Amino acid sequence: MSAIDDLTGELARLPGIGRKTALRLTYHLLRQPAEQSRRLADALVALTERVHPCTRCHNLTEAPLCAICADPRRDGALVCVVEQPSDIASIERSGEFRGRYHVLGGRLSPLDGVGPDDLTIDGLLSRLSPEGVQEVILATNPSLEGDATALYLQRQLAGRVGRVTRIARGLPVGGDLEYADGVTIAQALTARREM
Amino acid sequence: MSAIDDLTGELARLPGIGRKTALRLTYHLLRQPAEQSRRLADALVALTERVHPCTRCHNLTEAPLCAICADPRRDGALVCVVEQPSDIASIERSGEFRGRYHVLGGRLSPLDGVGPDDLTIDGLLSRLSPEGVQEVILATNPSLEGDATALYLQRQLAGRVGRVTRIARGLPVGGDLEYADGVTIAQALTARREM
Repeated sequence: MSAIDDLTGELARLPGIGRKTALRLTYHLLRQPAEQSRRLADALVALTERVHPCTRCHNLTEAPLCAICADPRRDGALVCVVEQPSDIASIERSGEFRGRYHVLGGRLSPLDGVGPDDLTIDGLLSRLSPEGVQEVILATNPSLEGDATALYLQRQLAGRVGRVTRIARGLPVGGDLEYADGVTIAQALTARREM
Repeated sequence: MSAIDDLTGELARLPGIGRKTALRLTYHLLRQPAEQSRRLADALVALTERVHPCTRCHNLTEAPLCAICADPRRDGALVCVVEQPSDIASIERSGEFRGRYHVLGGRLSPLDGVGPDDLTIDGLLSRLSPEGVQEVILATNPSLEGDATALYLQRQLAGRVGRVTRIARGLPVGGDLEYADGVTIAQALTARREM
């Protein structure tokens, strides 16, 4: 196995990167100064050595608590539940949310063998009273499994926290009716609001 | 700079990988066993440490001579000139060529400041008589610059080697006239052959 085949094979294991793209990336790196490949290698090693889940919310962090949990300005009464750490980055980009998060580590998926015990649901429930949580926002994905997970969580949380809410569905901002799928349009109509 | 930002930044330096894809890849690696990131890192380091140009044809190799130059079954009388080492992989996939290669390391491009001295043209000329080369196939890309490079090489090679040929242009196999661009169709018509 040559070093070129080796790297191409490893790159092709990444999602969305086929063998042809992997080969193109390998040749690209060969044309760059060796320093660039080395920095990428160092970053990969640092990632696996330094990053681990936040002990409170399971967001990824290099400290015991993630930056959001450690920030005293974040509102502990409001917890937003997401499937993956990457979802936190998306919500943070919106700049709209000032509470804390809870990462489930996936969604309920009986077909893939993912049940409630595989998610951090117990961890979520145990946070409610110590942190004085008043509202849990369920921000699992607007998919079949994300909806089922939200429904399951809503039942677990009912009576243990003041409010349980679900993120809204509708047409994406800047979207176009012409290109929206029928299900989204139907939901946007059902969830219509007074102006 | 966190380890996540660090790796995302390094991945986003690769061609065709934007910040969003880089972030997705980083989170993907975080969900995999650490072993996978480490293997990728090792492959990157091995690449820069072990791979270098073939002393004869400038193909990439881990030995002094590349596998093709070292193969006694390859026909030394036939040399195919390409722009990049990756072009060799493409031509080898066709299974059609049994000669050797010569990698220019680019194409003439006055706008980018690439002149004849930046390519391995001297190396090509010095191979002709010691290796008994009888035909040089110019397989630079069918682009404006690739054509200009082929024309320049043809003039340099004229009189120093038996035949100088250029790879054929035409409609790609499995292609569709409806989707072919006009220039390709024009060339396919000009280069038409008796059936």
